[in-house]
Amino acid sequence: MAKANGARRLPKKDYEARVPALRGALVQMQVALQHAPFPILLVVAGDEASGKGDVVNLLNAWLDPRGVETFAFHEPTDEERERPPMWRYWRCLPPRGRMAIYAGGWHADALRANPHTPHELDHFAERLRLFAHFERLLADGGALIIKVWLQLSEAAQRERLLSLESDPDTAWRVTADDWQHNRNHEHHARLSEQMRRATHKPGVPWHVIDATDPRARNLAVTECVLASFRRQLATQLKIGPASKPRRTVSLRPAGLRRLLALRLDQPLSEAAYSEKRDKWLGRLHRAVRTAAERGRSIVWVFEGWDAAGKGGAIRRLTSALDARDFRVIPIAKPTDEEKVHHYLWRFWRHAPRAGRVTIYDRSWYGRVLVERIEGFCRDPEWRRAYAELNDFEAQLTAHGIIVLKFWLHLSKAEQLRRFRLREETDYKQHKINAEDWRNRRQWAAYETAVGDMLALTDRPTAPWHLVPADNKCFARLEILKTSCKQIAAALEG
Amino acid sequence: MAKANGARRLPKKDYEARVPALRGALVQMQVALQHAPFPILLVVAGDEASGKGDVVNLLNAWLDPRGVETFAFHEPTDEERERPPMWRYWRCLPPRGRMAIYAGGWHADALRANPHTPHELDHFAERLRLFAHFERLLADGGALIIKVWLQLSEAAQRERLLSLESDPDTAWRVTADDWQHNRNHEHHARLSEQMRRATHKPGVPWHVIDATDPRARNLAVTECVLASFRRQLATQLKIGPASKPRRTVSLRPAGLRRLLALRLDQPLSEAAYSEKRDKWLGRLHRAVRTAAERGRSIVWVFEGWDAAGKGGAIRRLTSALDARDFRVIPIAKPTDEEKVHHYLWRFWRHAPRAGRVTIYDRSWYGRVLVERIEGFCRDPEWRRAYAELNDFEAQLTAHGIIVLKFWLHLSKAEQLRRFRLREETDYKQHKINAEDWRNRRQWAAYETAVGDMLALTDRPTAPWHLVPADNKCFARLEILKTSCKQIAAALEG
Repeated sequence: MAKANGARRLPKKDYEARVPALRGALVQMQVALQHAPFPILLVVAGDEASGKGDVVNLLNAWLDPRGVETFAFHEPTDEERERPPMWRYWRCLPPRGRMAIYAGGWHADALRANPHTPHELDHFAERLRLFAHFERLLADGGALIIKVWLQLSEAAQRERLLSLESDPDTAWRVTADDWQHNRNHEHHARLSEQMRRATHKPGVPWHVIDATDPRARNLAVTECVLASFRRQLATQLKIGPASKPRRTVSLRPAGLRRLLALRLDQPLSEAAYSEKRDKWLGRLHRAVRTAAERGRSIVWVFEGWDAAGKGGAIRRLTSALDARDFRVIPIAKPTDEEKVHHYLWRFWRHAPRAGRVTIYDRSWYGRVLVERIEGFCRDPEWRRAYAELNDFEAQLTAHGIIVLKFWLHLSKAEQLRRFRLREETDYKQHKINAEDWRNRRQWAAYETAVGDMLALTDRPTAPWHLVPADNKCFARLEILKTSCKQIAAALEG
Repeated sequence: MAKANGARRLPKKDYEARVPALRGALVQMQVALQHAPFPILLVVAGDEASGKGDVVNLLNAWLDPRGVETFAFHEPTDEERERPPMWRYWRCLPPRGRMAIYAGGWHADALRANPHTPHELDHFAERLRLFAHFERLLADGGALIIKVWLQLSEAAQRERLLSLESDPDTAWRVTADDWQHNRNHEHHARLSEQMRRATHKPGVPWHVIDATDPRARNLAVTECVLASFRRQLATQLKIGPASKPRRTVSLRPAGLRRLLALRLDQPLSEAAYSEKRDKWLGRLHRAVRTAAERGRSIVWVFEGWDAAGKGGAIRRLTSALDARDFRVIPIAKPTDEEKVHHYLWRFWRHAPRAGRVTIYDRSWYGRVLVERIEGFCRDPEWRRAYAELNDFEAQLTAHGIIVLKFWLHLSKAEQLRRFRLREETDYKQHKINAEDWRNRRQWAAYETAVGDMLALTDRPTAPWHLVPADNKCFARLEILKTSCKQIAAALEG
């Protein structure tokens, strides 16, 4: 086999002449990035011995290290293994205005598994689908994702390994695995090509860079980063701010019909409730314990009108659980750390450990409810969100997490009665404010948005349960019963 | 042995008559807590079978679960084991305005080790000292820490275990360990008394509660929580806001003398620096790799005048490291999540994993520099901080982390020259603002504060290195050399 193409080598003098301008441009990029409305994610992946580490270190030397963080994904920790596979990447995302470099990216995690059998190859393809979705999601959220693949021919790889081995300072970097890779170059090239094809999408393309000549490689990567940043900045600056929509028009009237068809005046006396409650609390306790013993986590999602009784329902529910095993996450305005991340980041961070329970008091559905109605996000953003939310939940359920979603439905008259009661009752006054009244005036818009949510995010693995909540006793019992049934079904399934 | 004192049992009727008022008071407490300037940490510890879990679950049922989180410390995860032992408790602290309940507390972690040998008992005593310090630190920071110990005599414990065993619904809760505990009741009582004595301090006392009668126990715990909260609220409301001190007076003039004695005009030409730099970068690279191989982490702390060259020094330093192993944490204004925690929380959260490096660009020393001078914290707060910072670092070094602290010292004239240069140079303008000029006008106050810091936080295990920084080349080389030497010394020691 021919030696790697020597003709392409860039003379040192030419290289050194070009470096100062590139370094300057990188630092200027970081200064501009600080005020840009997006983060940079740079994936430096490639063949073995193609110099991924060298490129990452070089960029770190050229950039201001205070604005960039580098990650490499080795063996997952036990805290990572207990969560859905993408959790470990979510926790390493840079906030807006900062940059992260991923040596090998998440892609190396999948390639390292080196799939051979049909089963392994299926799993590999599935991971690639998750990666493609992850990148699409972040890019849609405005993130700049730059992916470079450093390519090395079999011959060039062998030459590089020999050269590393010949120097006592670098010989330790060559492992038996590297030679194994070189011998199976074609197999690995096929796998990595499959990986690139599966994750090469508009907005998140792969840039394949010839890594034969380290100097040419360094320049190519740097230029790719700079050009991508300039393009992204120009695109992002053209996007106007979000604004409140004039009207809220239904996307799927079937959802609204389902909502309006709900019979709200459900009879159940306080006495009848008291009589049945303990039996169902006991069942729920046992169901959650059984799930925990099998390492299955549970996520409860509570959505509903203001004053629909979410808090009360959560209290009854948690009274059946061991306090050491659950967390209640009230979702209000995001913190400033949450605001500079993708809108799903704040939910990913609370994903439960194996056998634990997370209860969200309001949730990611705010994206298609309040954010849609108040114009906190743009039209395409909430439209796209239905699929994003479904996918998020699909990742939870695929990991074995049981997802229970409740919409607590109230009549407008009953809400008014409860608002007045809160205003009149001393110890309830903190539960009502001007915003509640403002939301109430937009009842029809919310109804429409809830209908769309029900129609577009009701899935067999994470179904919506509509709870008539005018009668609090009925609602609470209904939630207990439904939870028991869905958990039992999930454990049998 | 006599049966547990039946006379003390509280009739069910009396209990139920008192519960509604207590539940109401608990919820009122939570409402008030939301706007209180402190968090509540409730430790529910006690003898085996004393009903810790029952009390924790009961409180969770009585409280609004959205404002409280419950923790129990089982086996540390691998991410926890890689950090100093107190890290796992720091990550479970509630923010201001919220409450955390600790089933067993950190104390159970130490008691579970069940020390017998002199070596084990020494280690036990050391952990108790850490606990006492931790509680003192948080209480000084304003946190309300309520610690209850549920006490059960040997006989009452046996009776409780038998009663649990006799009911098929609770029999699973009794383990062989529980009976073992009962047989060694005296030994465990001695250990837990030693624990309580070591951690019973002003402001963080233990409340020992007789747990023989579950109803009386429940009421006693609840009343203790309510009374502690009322006291704390009254105390905290009396504390006025922090204000800017009129003058900054030296506590330890020796530190200032040391600072002023530093010779700033160190000769080292650019050429001489270039010649020596690579040798020291290579040494540093090897030193850090050796440390990593032994699981030793490194923490670099960079403090210094504005424009002293901290950023540049960090860049030179990181060029010797593998980007996958270090993180640079620039310390600016705290985020809002950081603001509602103890001031050390934001530093604890970045403690490096085993074999990794964290570089702090400015650090916890802000407490005794900018916060002291600008009056962002109160007089007793920064005065107390010297000991707190020493102790924080002692915990890092005790865990094997190598702590390298640099103060980059500049003459006032050189600072002026650099400020002007920044203003005049296009691509440096972002590095200078009005605040830099404001700080410069307080040069003497900062000098005094730096002097005190040097005098009071220079410790053999985490010494301060003063670096003359008028000559950038000299400063950078000095930092490289000193770092190599201190790492080598730490690895030999």
